[in-house]
Amino acid sequence: MDIYELAMQLHKEHKGKIGISLRDTPSSREKLSAYYSPGVGGVATYTAEHPDEMRDYTWTNNLVAVISDGSSVLGLGDIGPYGAMPVMEGKSMLFKHFADINAVPIVLNVHEPEEIISTIKAIAPSFGGINLEDISAPKCFGIEERLKTELNIPVMHDDQHGTAIVTLAGLINSVKVTGKNLDESRIVIVGAGAAGTAIIKLLNLYTKAELIAVDSKGIISKNRTDLNSEKHALLIFTNPGSIDGSLEHALMGADIFIGVSRAGLLTPETVKSMADKAVIFAMANPEPEILPDVAKQAGAAIVATGRSDYPNQVNNALAFPGIFRGALDNKVTRITDEHKLAAANAIASLVPNPTAEEIIPSILHPNLVKTVAAVIVPPVSLENQF
Amino acid sequence: MDIYELAMQLHKEHKGKIGISLRDTPSSREKLSAYYSPGVGGVATYTAEHPDEMRDYTWTNNLVAVISDGSSVLGLGDIGPYGAMPVMEGKSMLFKHFADINAVPIVLNVHEPEEIISTIKAIAPSFGGINLEDISAPKCFGIEERLKTELNIPVMHDDQHGTAIVTLAGLINSVKVTGKNLDESRIVIVGAGAAGTAIIKLLNLYTKAELIAVDSKGIISKNRTDLNSEKHALLIFTNPGSIDGSLEHALMGADIFIGVSRAGLLTPETVKSMADKAVIFAMANPEPEILPDVAKQAGAAIVATGRSDYPNQVNNALAFPGIFRGALDNKVTRITDEHKLAAANAIASLVPNPTAEEIIPSILHPNLVKTVAAVIVPPVSLENQF
Repeated sequence: MDIYELAMQLHKEHKGKIGISLRDTPSSREKLSAYYSPGVGGVATYTAEHPDEMRDYTWTNNLVAVISDGSSVLGLGDIGPYGAMPVMEGKSMLFKHFADINAVPIVLNVHEPEEIISTIKAIAPSFGGINLEDISAPKCFGIEERLKTELNIPVMHDDQHGTAIVTLAGLINSVKVTGKNLDESRIVIVGAGAAGTAIIKLLNLYTKAELIAVDSKGIISKNRTDLNSEKHALLIFTNPGSIDGSLEHALMGADIFIGVSRAGLLTPETVKSMADKAVIFAMANPEPEILPDVAKQAGAAIVATGRSDYPNQVNNALAFPGIFRGALDNKVTRITDEHKLAAANAIASLVPNPTAEEIIPSILHPNLVKTVAAVIVPPVSLENQF
Repeated sequence: MDIYELAMQLHKEHKGKIGISLRDTPSSREKLSAYYSPGVGGVATYTAEHPDEMRDYTWTNNLVAVISDGSSVLGLGDIGPYGAMPVMEGKSMLFKHFADINAVPIVLNVHEPEEIISTIKAIAPSFGGINLEDISAPKCFGIEERLKTELNIPVMHDDQHGTAIVTLAGLINSVKVTGKNLDESRIVIVGAGAAGTAIIKLLNLYTKAELIAVDSKGIISKNRTDLNSEKHALLIFTNPGSIDGSLEHALMGADIFIGVSRAGLLTPETVKSMADKAVIFAMANPEPEILPDVAKQAGAAIVATGRSDYPNQVNNALAFPGIFRGALDNKVTRITDEHKLAAANAIASLVPNPTAEEIIPSILHPNLVKTVAAVIVPPVSLENQF
């Protein structure tokens, strides 16, 4: 039985992956009267008058919504809310399993950015945080930005920032292994969607390295006339030499390849054209841009993928459980760039002596969630750490 | 410690009343790959292509949303979403405790009917059913009707129909005790909001009794110039003799008083003016329109209230758990008038030999949920029962 057959069987057998549990049993008449009418009326009156304290009396203190419109689900594209539901419920399962966070999957039957924003704003008081998931680029950028500004609970689009944080964590340890200076490296990021854009922005905050963005049409440069505004904005951070051309051109002599694009994009010949001790992050799912063995044979010093069956799995599950655990516990209302940088450093720190086969910790590392959560603190506390 | 202090203490101690549980532990790498990427991708592809079967692979098969905008919470009025949350979470607790249904509380930060409708429609694919709760009249009527028409999952505003169903169940057994013919009775319904309106409409379907509706301004009649369109529409079912006047005037010689109004509205003198063997349903919460002892002393044959510390508790929890249990199990997409009548009969049937002190079953009756659920069946099956 392959993994897809097993998945169908397990999903059908268990009729889903999550359920509701009770934190206390309302078995006595007194408890029923305290948890529901009339007793709950006193709690309701209090939380109406003190909305900031509502979380102390409800499950919202440990509750995240996993929200998607199904417009960019895994590698499957725009499959809509009914396709998205099993994936969002799976993400909720990961939230509970890894970080003991209650997470509710919400799939949306609307697709216009303004409709998505107004729907999420309307239901936001129901939750302690919002994990946006599998929303297509470029609309994901504006939706997240608006919600971060207009809501007073943490909002994070995990496809962007989870991926960016774990990628940076992996790079921090990669250069420890190769001995290169990241600030003097050339990094080629292939794929300029949600993940690629967030990776570029986070790398720009962390390093002075030369960044080159590449999409399906080639290098993103000022000479391109087909760029949407989000891709055009990447020129602020990338391609300082205004070079044009193909992926192969961009990678010639480059130190680091970061792929969030499609299977098989990278050939051994192109890897050979890169600089000595090349680092390859081939994170296309489920099939990477190049298989690790092939990249290694072509001379790559370090290879990371999104897969669990090779070393160096760049997995969002390294970041999002701890980030929301910290945000909820420490009453952080906004995930900032400083949080993302601190989270990347925290993840990297869990591999004190990185090697080519181990640049990032396992998602099962016992201290992972608490190490990441510890750096997701209110702005004042974070400043004190630097 | 009074019940309100106990409620605050229990809510704070348990940090809410519900949580998320896992239906299986994704402890092995293989299970993680089946419940999440890549395995879940196969399930997602399938449910995207077969949306009607999505429930078989996700928790939506046993999932209800408890949704409120907080505009009419318990007897507290418009206290908004942060006040509503503890109450909706309490309702979710009751769903789990009484019917083993997973229920997620959703509170809305919008108040205009069109905004409420579009928000609920946008999130509807996330759920197997929708329990609307504590939404103020008259907007609750249009919101529920639109959602019933435009969604393909069961939608019920419990403040309307739960109350109406249990009230009718109690009346069915009350007339067995008094020996009166319901069709020849005069029934005065006091309070013309969500509950009162639904009670009138359900009674109209069940009996030829003379119905008189009374609101805070007196008897609802065609001579009133202050009626909104919803109250005006009640004249189709009520006040055939076009009488005008006060509550006291309406009750003179009446057989049955149904109060969903406010504490202390009904005096012993008015009860005395009613017909012999008067039936009093004084359901204002938490304080009834008249205390049972006082009504009995004034000659009432049967008294019911909304309270658990007197006999004959007219409690919505007699109806909604079984109604949604049946709707989910039997894949009923619309709760109809026939379902409501059948549910009332089913609840009444659980007291085979009613007395003045026992016209309705306890919410702890072991067969309650399954007896109600058994009549919430698709239209064709239901027709066969009549």
